[in-house]
Amino acid sequence: MAIGFAQALEQRVRAGFAPAIIGLDPRLDALPAELGGVDDPVERICAFYRESLPRLAPHVGVVKPNIAFFEQFGWSGFRAYESTCALAQELGMLVVGDIKRGDIGTTAAAYAAFHLRVADAVTLHPYLGSDSLEPFLSLSRTAGKGLFVLVRTSNPSAAEFQDLQVGEADLSTAVARAVDRWGEGTGDPDGYAHVGAVVGATWPGQIEHLRRCMPRAWLLLPGVGAQGATVSDVAAAFDPRGRGALVAQSRGVMQAFAPGDPDWRDRIAAAAAAFAAEVHTVAGTGQGER
Amino acid sequence: MAIGFAQALEQRVRAGFAPAIIGLDPRLDALPAELGGVDDPVERICAFYRESLPRLAPHVGVVKPNIAFFEQFGWSGFRAYESTCALAQELGMLVVGDIKRGDIGTTAAAYAAFHLRVADAVTLHPYLGSDSLEPFLSLSRTAGKGLFVLVRTSNPSAAEFQDLQVGEADLSTAVARAVDRWGEGTGDPDGYAHVGAVVGATWPGQIEHLRRCMPRAWLLLPGVGAQGATVSDVAAAFDPRGRGALVAQSRGVMQAFAPGDPDWRDRIAAAAAAFAAEVHTVAGTGQGER
Repeated sequence: MAIGFAQALEQRVRAGFAPAIIGLDPRLDALPAELGGVDDPVERICAFYRESLPRLAPHVGVVKPNIAFFEQFGWSGFRAYESTCALAQELGMLVVGDIKRGDIGTTAAAYAAFHLRVADAVTLHPYLGSDSLEPFLSLSRTAGKGLFVLVRTSNPSAAEFQDLQVGEADLSTAVARAVDRWGEGTGDPDGYAHVGAVVGATWPGQIEHLRRCMPRAWLLLPGVGAQGATVSDVAAAFDPRGRGALVAQSRGVMQAFAPGDPDWRDRIAAAAAAFAAEVHTVAGTGQGER
Repeated sequence: MAIGFAQALEQRVRAGFAPAIIGLDPRLDALPAELGGVDDPVERICAFYRESLPRLAPHVGVVKPNIAFFEQFGWSGFRAYESTCALAQELGMLVVGDIKRGDIGTTAAAYAAFHLRVADAVTLHPYLGSDSLEPFLSLSRTAGKGLFVLVRTSNPSAAEFQDLQVGEADLSTAVARAVDRWGEGTGDPDGYAHVGAVVGATWPGQIEHLRRCMPRAWLLLPGVGAQGATVSDVAAAFDPRGRGALVAQSRGVMQAFAPGDPDWRDRIAAAAAAFAAEVHTVAGTGQGER
Protein backbone atom coordinates (compact mmCIF):
# COMPACT_ATOMS: atom_id res chain seq x y z
CA MET A 1 0.00 0.00 0.00
CA ALA A 2 2.16 2.84 -1.27
CA ILE A 3 -0.72 5.32 -0.97
CA GLY A 4 -2.83 5.91 2.14
CA PHE A 5 -5.67 3.60 3.09
CA ALA A 6 -8.53 5.98 2.21
CA GLN A 7 -6.99 6.64 -1.21
CA ALA A 8 -6.40 2.92 -1.73
CA LEU A 9 -10.09 2.24 -1.08
CA GLU A 10 -11.07 4.96 -3.55
CA GLN A 11 -8.69 3.45 -6.09
CA ARG A 12 -10.25 -0.01 -5.67
CA VAL A 13 -13.78 1.30 -6.24
CA ARG A 14 -12.64 3.38 -9.20
CA ALA A 15 -11.06 0.25 -10.68
CA GLY A 16 -14.49 -1.37 -10.64
CA PHE A 17 -14.49 -3.26 -7.38
CA ALA A 18 -17.65 -3.04 -5.31
CA PRO A 19 -17.35 -1.28 -1.93
CA ALA A 20 -17.45 -4.67 -0.24
CA ILE A 21 -15.23 -6.61 2.13
CA ILE A 22 -15.06 -10.37 2.63
CA GLY A 23 -14.47 -11.76 6.11
CA LEU A 24 -11.99 -14.61 6.48
CA ASP A 25 -13.11 -16.59 9.54
CA PRO A 26 -11.56 -20.04 9.21
CA ARG A 27 -13.75 -22.83 10.62
CA LEU A 28 -12.52 -26.39 10.40
CA ASP A 29 -16.06 -27.69 9.99
CA ALA A 30 -16.63 -25.51 6.95
CA LEU A 31 -13.65 -26.45 4.78
CA PRO A 32 -13.94 -28.44 1.55
CA ALA A 33 -13.91 -32.19 2.17
CA GLU A 34 -11.10 -32.68 -0.33
CA LEU A 35 -8.74 -30.81 2.01
CA GLY A 36 -9.50 -33.41 4.69
CA GLY A 37 -6.36 -35.28 3.65
CA VAL A 38 -4.21 -32.48 5.08
CA ASP A 39 -3.52 -33.67 8.61
CA ASP A 40 -2.59 -30.50 10.44
CA PRO A 41 -5.71 -28.33 10.93
CA VAL A 42 -3.85 -25.04 10.51
CA GLU A 43 -2.16 -26.32 7.35
CA ARG A 44 -5.64 -27.24 6.08
CA ILE A 45 -6.76 -23.64 6.65
CA CYS A 46 -3.70 -22.29 4.85
CA ALA A 47 -4.36 -24.66 1.94
CA PHE A 48 -7.94 -23.41 1.79
CA TYR A 49 -6.84 -19.80 1.48
CA ARG A 50 -4.03 -20.60 -0.98
CA GLU A 51 -6.67 -22.12 -3.24
CA SER A 52 -9.55 -19.73 -2.62
CA LEU A 53 -7.99 -16.27 -2.35
CA PRO A 54 -6.76 -16.22 -5.97
CA ARG A 55 -10.37 -16.94 -7.01
CA LEU A 56 -11.64 -14.16 -4.74
CA ALA A 57 -9.17 -11.51 -5.87
CA PRO A 58 -10.77 -10.75 -9.29
CA HIS A 59 -14.06 -9.89 -7.54
CA VAL A 60 -13.08 -8.41 -4.17
CA GLY A 61 -10.81 -5.48 -3.35
CA VAL A 62 -10.68 -5.86 0.44
CA VAL A 63 -10.61 -8.80 2.86
CA LYS A 64 -11.01 -8.90 6.63
CA PRO A 65 -9.25 -11.83 8.32
CA ASN A 66 -10.67 -12.25 11.82
CA ILE A 67 -7.66 -13.01 13.99
CA ALA A 68 -9.71 -14.84 16.67
CA PHE A 69 -10.39 -17.72 14.29
CA PHE A 70 -6.66 -18.06 13.64
CA GLU A 71 -5.53 -17.37 17.21
CA GLN A 72 -7.78 -20.14 18.57
CA PHE A 73 -5.22 -22.62 17.20
CA GLY A 74 -2.40 -21.00 19.15
CA TRP A 75 0.91 -19.87 17.66
CA SER A 76 0.59 -21.90 14.46
CA GLY A 77 -2.80 -20.27 13.85
CA PHE A 78 -1.25 -16.88 14.55
CA ARG A 79 1.38 -17.67 11.93
CA ALA A 80 -1.40 -18.57 9.50
CA TYR A 81 -3.00 -15.16 10.16
CA GLU A 82 0.26 -13.48 9.19
CA SER A 83 0.69 -15.57 6.04
CA THR A 84 -2.96 -15.12 5.03
CA CYS A 85 -2.62 -11.33 5.31
CA ALA A 86 0.55 -11.46 3.22
CA LEU A 87 -1.06 -13.71 0.58
CA ALA A 88 -4.09 -11.42 0.23
CA GLN A 89 -1.82 -8.39 -0.22
CA GLU A 90 0.29 -10.23 -2.81
CA LEU A 91 -2.94 -10.83 -4.71
CA GLY A 92 -3.62 -7.07 -4.70
CA MET A 93 -6.27 -7.02 -2.00
CA LEU A 94 -6.29 -4.57 0.89
CA VAL A 95 -6.29 -6.26 4.30
CA VAL A 96 -8.32 -5.06 7.29
CA GLY A 97 -7.11 -7.06 10.28
CA ASP A 98 -10.17 -7.69 12.41
CA ILE A 99 -8.24 -7.66 15.68
CA LYS A 100 -10.50 -5.53 17.92
CA ARG A 101 -7.61 -4.60 20.20
CA GLY A 102 -7.73 -1.76 22.70
CA ASP A 103 -5.10 -1.02 25.35
CA ILE A 104 -3.06 1.84 26.77
CA GLY A 105 0.36 3.45 26.48
CA THR A 106 3.23 1.21 25.52
CA THR A 107 0.86 -1.76 25.16
CA ALA A 108 -1.13 0.06 22.50
CA ALA A 109 2.14 1.02 20.81
CA ALA A 110 3.19 -2.64 20.69
CA TYR A 111 -0.12 -3.68 19.12
CA ALA A 112 -0.02 -0.82 16.62
CA ALA A 113 3.52 -1.41 15.43
CA PHE A 114 2.93 -5.10 14.77
CA HIS A 115 -0.63 -5.17 13.46
CA LEU A 116 -0.30 -2.17 11.16
CA ARG A 117 2.78 -3.78 9.65
CA VAL A 118 0.91 -7.04 8.94
CA ALA A 119 -2.34 -5.42 7.74
CA ASP A 120 -3.31 -2.20 5.92
CA ALA A 121 -5.94 -1.37 8.55
CA VAL A 122 -7.28 -2.78 11.82
CA THR A 123 -10.42 -2.71 13.97
CA LEU A 124 -10.18 -1.17 17.46
CA HIS A 125 -12.12 -0.76 20.73
CA PRO A 126 -12.93 2.81 21.85
CA TYR A 127 -13.65 2.25 25.58
CA LEU A 128 -10.20 3.42 26.79
CA GLY A 129 -10.38 6.76 24.96
CA SER A 130 -8.08 8.87 22.79
CA ASP A 131 -4.69 8.04 24.26
CA SER A 132 -5.31 4.32 23.66
CA LEU A 133 -5.84 5.11 19.96
CA GLU A 134 -2.90 7.47 19.64
CA PRO A 135 -0.20 4.96 18.54
CA PHE A 136 -2.58 3.79 15.80
CA LEU A 137 -3.55 7.35 14.84
CA SER A 138 0.12 8.22 14.63
CA LEU A 139 0.62 5.48 12.02
CA SER A 140 -2.47 6.75 10.21
CA ARG A 141 -0.95 10.20 9.96
CA THR A 142 2.60 9.15 9.09
CA ALA A 143 2.09 5.94 7.10
CA GLY A 144 -1.49 6.21 5.85
CA LYS A 145 -2.69 3.21 7.83
CA GLY A 146 -6.43 2.65 8.26
CA LEU A 147 -8.45 2.23 11.46
CA PHE A 148 -12.03 1.15 12.04
CA VAL A 149 -13.21 2.01 15.54
CA LEU A 150 -16.13 0.03 16.98
CA VAL A 151 -19.06 2.47 17.15
CA ARG A 152 -22.32 0.47 16.91
CA THR A 153 -21.75 -3.27 16.74
CA SER A 154 -23.98 -5.79 14.98
CA ASN A 155 -24.79 -8.07 17.93
CA PRO A 156 -28.08 -8.12 19.89
CA SER A 157 -26.44 -6.83 23.12
CA ALA A 158 -24.93 -3.83 21.34
CA ALA A 159 -27.69 -1.67 22.77
CA GLU A 160 -26.74 -2.46 26.38
CA PHE A 161 -24.02 0.19 26.64
CA GLN A 162 -23.88 1.74 23.17
CA ASP A 163 -27.47 3.04 23.38
CA LEU A 164 -27.14 4.58 26.84
CA GLN A 165 -28.07 8.26 26.75
CA VAL A 166 -25.15 10.57 27.47
CA GLY A 167 -26.43 14.13 27.39
CA GLU A 168 -28.55 14.72 24.29
CA ALA A 169 -27.25 11.69 22.37
CA ASP A 170 -26.26 8.09 23.03
CA LEU A 171 -22.85 6.56 23.68
CA SER A 172 -22.35 5.30 20.13
CA THR A 173 -23.01 8.85 18.90
CA ALA A 174 -20.37 10.17 21.33
CA VAL A 175 -17.90 7.62 19.98
CA ALA A 176 -18.88 8.49 16.40
CA ARG A 177 -18.11 12.16 17.06
CA ALA A 178 -14.74 11.14 18.48
CA VAL A 179 -14.06 9.08 15.33
CA ASP A 180 -14.76 12.20 13.28
CA ARG A 181 -12.22 14.15 15.37
CA TRP A 182 -9.64 11.33 15.31
CA GLY A 183 -9.77 11.37 11.51
CA GLU A 184 -8.69 15.02 11.29
CA GLY A 185 -5.33 15.38 9.58
CA THR A 186 -5.54 11.92 8.01
CA GLY A 187 -6.52 10.73 4.55
CA ASP A 188 -7.77 12.89 1.73
CA PRO A 189 -8.37 16.46 2.98
CA ASP A 190 -11.28 16.83 0.54
CA GLY A 191 -12.64 13.32 1.06
CA TYR A 192 -12.39 10.40 3.39
CA ALA A 193 -10.14 10.06 6.42
CA HIS A 194 -8.04 7.01 7.30
CA VAL A 195 -10.11 6.64 10.48
CA GLY A 196 -13.35 4.77 9.89
CA ALA A 197 -15.94 3.05 12.04
CA VAL A 198 -17.62 -0.32 12.49
CA VAL A 199 -21.40 0.08 12.32
CA GLY A 200 -23.60 -3.02 12.35
CA ALA A 201 -25.68 -3.54 9.21
CA THR A 202 -28.23 -5.05 11.58
CA TRP A 203 -29.30 -1.57 12.78
CA PRO A 204 -30.45 0.20 9.60
CA GLY A 205 -32.26 2.83 11.68
CA GLN A 206 -28.99 4.14 13.08
CA ILE A 207 -26.82 3.99 9.98
CA GLU A 208 -28.07 7.25 8.49
CA HIS A 209 -27.60 9.12 11.78
CA LEU A 210 -24.09 7.74 12.33
CA ARG A 211 -23.20 8.50 8.69
CA ARG A 212 -24.00 12.17 9.40
CA CYS A 213 -21.92 12.18 12.61
CA MET A 214 -18.85 10.90 10.74
CA PRO A 215 -18.98 12.46 7.25
CA ARG A 216 -15.33 11.63 6.52
CA ALA A 217 -15.30 8.05 7.90
CA TRP A 218 -15.43 4.89 5.84
CA LEU A 219 -18.03 2.69 7.57
CA LEU A 220 -17.38 -1.03 7.81
CA LEU A 221 -20.77 -2.76 8.00
CA PRO A 222 -20.86 -6.34 9.28
CA GLY A 223 -24.04 -8.31 9.84
CA VAL A 224 -25.19 -9.07 6.29
CA GLY A 225 -26.09 -12.72 5.77
CA ALA A 226 -25.82 -15.04 8.78
CA GLN A 227 -26.66 -12.19 11.18
CA GLY A 228 -29.82 -11.32 9.28
CA ALA A 229 -29.19 -7.98 7.55
CA THR A 230 -29.42 -7.50 3.79
CA VAL A 231 -27.31 -5.39 1.47
CA SER A 232 -30.21 -2.99 0.94
CA ASP A 233 -30.33 -2.31 4.71
CA VAL A 234 -27.10 -0.35 4.41
CA ALA A 235 -27.99 1.92 1.48
CA ALA A 236 -27.89 4.99 3.75
CA ALA A 237 -24.22 4.37 4.52
CA PHE A 238 -23.08 5.32 0.99
CA ASP A 239 -22.44 8.81 -0.26
CA PRO A 240 -23.99 9.82 -3.61
CA ARG A 241 -20.86 8.53 -5.40
CA GLY A 242 -21.18 5.10 -3.77
CA ARG A 243 -18.22 5.67 -1.49
CA GLY A 244 -17.83 5.72 2.28
CA ALA A 245 -19.09 2.23 3.15
CA LEU A 246 -17.74 -1.31 2.95
CA VAL A 247 -20.42 -3.98 3.18
CA ALA A 248 -19.06 -7.09 4.86
CA GLN A 249 -19.93 -10.68 4.14
CA SER A 250 -18.19 -13.85 5.34
CA ARG A 251 -19.99 -17.18 5.38
CA GLY A 252 -22.23 -16.33 2.39
CA VAL A 253 -19.13 -16.24 0.20
CA MET A 254 -16.41 -18.32 1.89
CA GLN A 255 -18.81 -21.17 2.75
CA ALA A 256 -20.85 -21.06 -0.46
CA PHE A 257 -20.36 -24.75 -1.20
CA ALA A 258 -21.46 -28.15 0.06
CA PRO A 259 -18.58 -29.92 1.83
CA GLY A 260 -18.14 -32.56 -0.85
CA ASP A 261 -18.57 -30.27 -3.87
CA PRO A 262 -15.51 -30.71 -6.15
CA ASP A 263 -16.28 -27.31 -7.72
CA TRP A 264 -16.02 -25.42 -4.44
CA ARG A 265 -13.52 -22.94 -5.87
CA ASP A 266 -16.00 -21.95 -8.56
CA ARG A 267 -18.77 -21.63 -5.97
CA ILE A 268 -16.70 -19.17 -3.94
CA ALA A 269 -15.84 -17.14 -7.05
CA ALA A 270 -19.48 -17.11 -8.14
CA ALA A 271 -20.72 -16.11 -4.67
CA ALA A 272 -18.13 -13.32 -4.50
CA ALA A 273 -19.17 -12.06 -7.94
CA ALA A 274 -22.85 -12.18 -6.97
CA PHE A 275 -22.22 -10.36 -3.70
CA ALA A 276 -20.14 -7.72 -5.48
CA ALA A 277 -22.93 -7.21 -8.02
CA GLU A 278 -25.48 -6.83 -5.24
CA VAL A 279 -23.34 -4.22 -3.47
CA HIS A 280 -22.71 -2.40 -6.78
CA THR A 281 -26.48 -2.13 -7.27
CA VAL A 282 -27.10 -0.64 -3.82
CA ALA A 283 -24.05 1.66 -3.95
CA GLY A 284 -24.65 2.72 -7.52
CA THR A 285 -21.08 1.90 -8.43
CA GLY A 286 -19.57 -0.24 -11.13
CA GLN A 287 -21.35 1.22 -14.17
CA GLY A 288 -18.53 1.85 -16.55
CA GLU A 289 -16.07 2.82 -13.81
CA ARG A 290 -13.85 -0.16 -14.46
CA MET B 1 -6.39 -24.95 38.70
CA ALA B 2 -8.63 -27.77 40.00
CA ILE B 3 -10.74 -25.33 42.03
CA GLY B 4 -12.44 -22.20 40.69
CA PHE B 5 -10.55 -18.96 40.16
CA ALA B 6 -12.08 -17.04 43.09
CA GLN B 7 -11.34 -19.94 45.45
CA ALA B 8 -7.80 -20.25 44.06
CA LEU B 9 -7.17 -16.57 44.82
CA GLU B 10 -8.50 -17.03 48.37
CA GLN B 11 -6.22 -20.07 48.74
CA ARG B 12 -3.18 -18.07 47.63
CA VAL B 13 -3.83 -15.29 50.15
CA ARG B 14 -4.53 -17.80 52.91
CA ALA B 15 -1.20 -19.47 52.10
CA GLY B 16 0.49 -16.15 52.84
CA PHE B 17 0.81 -14.56 49.45
CA ALA B 18 -0.02 -10.88 49.24
CA PRO B 19 -3.08 -9.95 47.13
CA ALA B 20 -0.74 -8.74 44.40
CA ILE B 21 -0.18 -9.52 40.74
CA ILE B 22 2.97 -9.02 38.70
CA GLY B 23 2.67 -7.94 35.08
CA LEU B 24 4.91 -9.67 32.55
CA ASP B 25 5.46 -7.15 29.73
CA PRO B 26 8.60 -8.27 27.90
CA ARG B 27 10.66 -5.38 26.54
CA LEU B 28 13.88 -6.13 24.69
CA ASP B 29 15.49 -2.95 25.96
CA ALA B 30 14.88 -3.99 29.59
CA LEU B 31 16.42 -7.46 29.64
CA PRO B 32 19.62 -8.30 31.53
CA ALA B 33 22.73 -7.62 29.46
CA GLU B 34 24.03 -11.13 30.06
CA LEU B 35 21.16 -12.52 27.95
CA GLY B 36 22.41 -10.38 25.05
CA GLY B 37 24.28 -13.42 23.76
CA VAL B 38 21.00 -15.11 22.87
CA ASP B 39 20.50 -14.12 19.24
CA ASP B 40 16.79 -14.57 18.71
CA PRO B 41 14.87 -11.81 20.55
CA VAL B 42 11.95 -14.07 21.46
CA GLU B 43 14.31 -16.75 22.74
CA ARG B 44 15.97 -14.05 24.85
CA ILE B 45 12.57 -13.22 26.39
CA CYS B 46 11.89 -16.90 27.09
CA ALA B 47 15.32 -17.25 28.71
CA PHE B 48 14.54 -14.21 30.90
CA TYR B 49 11.32 -15.79 32.17
CA ARG B 50 12.88 -19.24 32.60
CA GLU B 51 15.43 -17.62 34.91
CA SER B 52 13.23 -15.06 36.66
CA LEU B 53 9.87 -16.76 37.21
CA PRO B 54 11.28 -19.39 39.61
CA ARG B 55 12.67 -16.48 41.67
CA LEU B 56 9.30 -14.71 41.55
CA ALA B 57 7.18 -17.74 42.52
CA PRO B 58 8.08 -17.79 46.26
CA HIS B 59 6.81 -14.22 46.60
CA VAL B 60 3.97 -13.87 44.12
CA GLY B 61 0.80 -15.93 43.70
CA VAL B 62 -0.49 -14.42 40.47
CA VAL B 63 1.11 -13.12 37.26
CA LYS B 64 -0.37 -11.17 34.38
CA PRO B 65 1.40 -11.71 31.07
CA ASN B 66 0.39 -8.93 28.69
CA ILE B 67 -0.08 -10.63 25.33
CA ALA B 68 0.58 -7.46 23.32
CA PHE B 69 4.23 -7.48 24.30
CA PHE B 70 4.54 -11.07 23.08
CA GLU B 71 2.31 -10.68 20.03
CA GLN B 72 4.39 -7.77 18.75
CA PHE B 73 7.01 -10.35 17.70
CA GLY B 74 4.49 -12.27 15.61
CA TRP B 75 3.85 -15.99 15.85
CA SER B 76 7.06 -16.81 17.73
CA GLY B 77 6.14 -14.21 20.33
CA PHE B 78 2.67 -15.71 20.54
CA ARG B 79 4.29 -19.08 21.17
CA ALA B 80 6.36 -17.49 23.93
CA TYR B 81 3.14 -16.17 25.50
CA GLU B 82 1.77 -19.72 25.60
CA SER B 83 4.97 -21.17 27.06
CA THR B 84 5.29 -18.36 29.63
CA CYS B 85 1.74 -19.00 30.85
CA ALA B 86 2.50 -22.72 31.12
CA LEU B 87 5.76 -22.10 32.96
CA ALA B 88 4.10 -19.79 35.51
CA GLN B 89 1.39 -22.38 36.15
CA GLU B 90 3.98 -25.13 36.57
CA LEU B 91 5.58 -22.95 39.22
CA GLY B 92 2.26 -22.79 41.08
CA MET B 93 1.26 -19.27 40.06
CA LEU B 94 -2.18 -18.34 38.77
CA VAL B 95 -2.13 -16.71 35.33
CA VAL B 96 -4.33 -13.79 34.32
CA GLY B 97 -3.89 -13.40 30.57
CA ASP B 98 -4.00 -9.66 29.88
CA ILE B 99 -5.57 -10.04 26.46
CA LYS B 100 -8.28 -7.33 26.53
CA ARG B 101 -10.31 -9.09 23.85
CA GLY B 102 -13.93 -8.30 23.08
CA ASP B 103 -15.93 -9.63 20.16
CA ILE B 104 -19.27 -11.22 19.33
CA GLY B 105 -20.86 -14.61 18.80
CA THR B 106 -18.67 -17.35 17.37
CA THR B 107 -15.66 -14.99 17.44
CA ALA B 108 -16.00 -14.54 21.20
CA ALA B 109 -16.39 -18.31 21.55
CA ALA B 110 -13.13 -18.87 19.66
CA TYR B 111 -11.27 -16.42 21.90
CA ALA B 112 -12.78 -17.89 25.07
CA ALA B 113 -12.01 -21.51 24.25
CA PHE B 114 -8.36 -20.81 23.50
CA HIS B 115 -7.45 -18.14 26.03
CA LEU B 116 -9.20 -19.74 28.99
CA ARG B 117 -7.36 -22.96 28.19
CA VAL B 118 -3.97 -21.20 28.22
CA ALA B 119 -4.66 -18.97 31.25
CA ASP B 120 -6.72 -19.21 34.46
CA ALA B 121 -8.38 -15.86 33.83
CA VAL B 122 -8.39 -13.11 31.18
CA THR B 123 -9.13 -9.40 30.83
CA LEU B 124 -12.02 -8.34 28.57
CA HIS B 125 -13.64 -5.28 26.94
CA PRO B 126 -17.27 -4.50 27.89
CA TYR B 127 -18.31 -2.23 24.97
CA LEU B 128 -20.14 -4.97 23.03
CA GLY B 129 -22.36 -5.98 25.95
CA SER B 130 -23.52 -9.20 27.59
CA ASP B 131 -23.66 -11.55 24.63
CA SER B 132 -20.01 -10.79 23.83
CA LEU B 133 -19.09 -11.96 27.35
CA GLU B 134 -21.31 -15.03 27.32
CA PRO B 135 -18.79 -17.62 26.01
CA PHE B 136 -16.37 -16.48 28.73
CA LEU B 137 -19.10 -16.43 31.41
CA SER B 138 -20.09 -19.93 30.37
CA LEU B 139 -16.53 -21.13 31.10
CA SER B 140 -16.66 -19.27 34.42
CA ARG B 141 -19.79 -21.15 35.41
CA THR B 142 -18.74 -24.59 34.14
CA ALA B 143 -14.96 -24.57 34.61
CA GLY B 144 -14.41 -21.89 37.26
CA LYS B 145 -12.45 -19.64 34.92
CA GLY B 146 -11.83 -16.02 35.94
CA LEU B 147 -12.67 -12.81 34.05
CA PHE B 148 -11.66 -9.21 34.67
CA VAL B 149 -13.83 -6.78 32.74
CA LEU B 150 -12.44 -3.31 32.00
CA VAL B 151 -14.48 -0.90 34.12
CA ARG B 152 -12.33 2.17 34.87
CA THR B 153 -8.93 2.05 33.22
CA SER B 154 -5.73 3.63 34.53
CA ASN B 155 -4.88 5.86 31.55
CA PRO B 156 -5.40 9.64 31.35
CA SER B 157 -8.06 9.35 28.61
CA ALA B 158 -10.13 6.89 30.65
CA ALA B 159 -12.49 9.72 31.59
CA GLU B 160 -13.37 10.46 27.96
CA PHE B 161 -16.10 7.82 27.68
CA GLN B 162 -16.03 6.05 31.06
CA ASP B 163 -17.02 9.22 32.96
CA LEU B 164 -19.89 10.17 30.67
CA GLN B 165 -23.10 10.54 32.68
CA VAL B 166 -25.71 7.92 31.81
CA GLY B 167 -28.78 8.61 33.89
CA GLU B 168 -27.84 9.16 37.53
CA ALA B 169 -24.39 7.55 37.28
CA ASP B 170 -21.49 7.36 34.82
CA LEU B 171 -20.67 4.75 32.21
CA SER B 172 -18.05 2.97 34.34
CA THR B 173 -20.68 2.60 37.08
CA ALA B 174 -23.11 1.09 34.56
CA VAL B 175 -20.42 -1.39 33.51
CA ALA B 176 -19.60 -2.11 37.17
CA ARG B 177 -23.26 -2.97 37.84
CA ALA B 178 -23.20 -5.29 34.84
CA VAL B 179 -20.05 -6.95 36.22
CA ASP B 180 -21.94 -7.56 39.46
CA ARG B 181 -24.78 -9.21 37.51
CA TRP B 182 -22.42 -11.22 35.30
CA GLY B 183 -20.81 -12.70 38.40
CA GLU B 184 -24.09 -14.21 39.63
CA GLY B 185 -23.96 -17.99 39.73
CA THR B 186 -20.14 -18.03 39.63
CA GLY B 187 -17.52 -18.45 42.33
CA ASP B 188 -18.16 -18.76 46.03
CA PRO B 189 -21.87 -18.11 46.76
CA ASP B 190 -20.92 -16.55 50.11
CA GLY B 191 -17.88 -14.73 48.84
CA TYR B 192 -16.28 -13.61 45.63
CA ALA B 193 -17.43 -14.33 42.10
CA HIS B 194 -15.22 -15.49 39.22
CA VAL B 195 -16.08 -12.25 37.41
CA GLY B 196 -13.90 -9.36 38.48
CA ALA B 197 -13.06 -5.91 37.14
CA VAL B 198 -10.11 -3.81 36.09
CA VAL B 199 -10.09 -0.52 38.01
CA GLY B 200 -7.13 1.84 37.63
CA ALA B 201 -5.17 2.49 40.82
CA THR B 202 -4.62 5.96 39.37
CA TRP B 203 -8.18 7.00 40.32
CA PRO B 204 -8.33 6.48 44.10
CA GLY B 205 -11.44 8.67 44.32
CA GLN B 206 -13.47 6.15 42.32
CA ILE B 207 -12.20 2.91 43.84
CA GLU B 208 -14.41 3.04 46.93
CA HIS B 209 -17.52 3.75 44.86
CA LEU B 210 -16.78 0.98 42.34
CA ARG B 211 -15.98 -1.43 45.18
CA ARG B 212 -19.53 -0.86 46.50
CA CYS B 213 -21.07 -1.37 43.04
CA MET B 214 -19.37 -4.78 42.70
CA PRO B 215 -19.25 -6.29 46.20
CA ARG B 216 -18.47 -9.79 44.88
CA ALA B 217 -15.85 -8.82 42.28
CA TRP B 218 -12.10 -9.17 42.66
CA LEU B 219 -10.66 -5.87 41.46
CA LEU B 220 -7.46 -5.89 39.43
CA LEU B 221 -5.73 -2.55 40.00
CA PRO B 222 -3.04 -1.50 37.52
CA GLY B 223 -1.28 1.84 37.61
CA VAL B 224 1.02 1.49 40.63
CA GLY B 225 4.60 2.49 39.91
CA ALA B 226 5.39 3.79 36.43
CA GLN B 227 1.86 5.21 36.03
CA GLY B 228 2.13 7.16 39.26
CA ALA B 229 -0.17 5.48 41.78
CA THR B 230 1.03 4.06 45.10
CA VAL B 231 -0.06 0.94 46.93
CA SER B 232 -1.77 3.03 49.61
CA ASP B 233 -3.95 4.64 46.92
CA VAL B 234 -5.87 1.38 46.60
CA ALA B 235 -6.59 0.68 50.27
CA ALA B 236 -10.32 1.17 49.71
CA ALA B 237 -10.39 -1.74 47.27
CA PHE B 238 -9.81 -4.35 49.99
CA ASP B 239 -12.48 -5.88 52.19
CA PRO B 240 -11.81 -5.99 55.96
CA ARG B 241 -10.16 -9.41 55.50
CA GLY B 242 -7.73 -8.05 52.90
CA ARG B 243 -9.43 -9.81 50.03
CA GLY B 244 -11.14 -8.58 46.88
CA ALA B 245 -8.28 -6.69 45.26
CA LEU B 246 -5.11 -7.55 43.36
CA VAL B 247 -2.60 -4.72 43.21
CA ALA B 248 -0.62 -4.87 39.99
CA GLN B 249 3.00 -3.95 39.43
CA SER B 250 5.19 -4.66 36.41
CA ARG B 251 8.31 -2.60 35.75
CA GLY B 252 8.99 -1.95 39.45
CA VAL B 253 9.63 -5.67 39.91
CA MET B 254 10.55 -7.15 36.54
CA GLN B 255 12.93 -4.29 35.67
CA ALA B 256 14.36 -3.82 39.17
CA PHE B 257 17.97 -4.10 38.01
CA ALA B 258 20.56 -2.18 36.05
CA PRO B 259 21.19 -3.82 32.65
CA GLY B 260 24.68 -5.03 33.52
CA ASP B 261 23.94 -6.18 37.09
CA PRO B 262 25.07 -9.82 37.42
CA ASP B 263 22.76 -10.21 40.43
CA TRP B 264 19.63 -9.29 38.48
CA ARG B 265 17.82 -12.46 39.59
CA ASP B 266 18.26 -11.45 43.23
CA ARG B 267 17.09 -7.91 42.47
CA ILE B 268 13.84 -9.23 40.98
CA ALA B 269 13.28 -11.55 43.94
CA ALA B 270 13.99 -8.73 46.40
CA ALA B 271 11.71 -6.28 44.56
CA ALA B 272 8.93 -8.88 44.48
CA ALA B 273 9.34 -9.53 48.21
CA ALA B 274 9.31 -5.80 48.96
CA PHE B 275 6.23 -5.21 46.83
CA ALA B 276 4.45 -8.15 48.47
CA ALA B 277 5.30 -6.75 51.92
CA GLU B 278 3.97 -3.34 50.92
CA VAL B 279 0.69 -4.84 49.69
CA HIS B 280 0.41 -7.00 52.82
CA THR B 281 0.67 -3.85 54.94
CA VAL B 282 -2.09 -2.03 53.08
CA ALA B 283 -4.33 -5.09 52.82
CA GLY B 284 -3.72 -6.19 56.39
CA THR B 285 -2.87 -9.69 55.22
CA GLY B 286 0.13 -11.91 55.86
CA GLN B 287 0.24 -11.76 59.68
CA GLY B 288 0.52 -15.40 60.61
CA GLU B 289 -1.75 -16.56 57.79
CA ARG B 290 1.00 -18.47 56.04
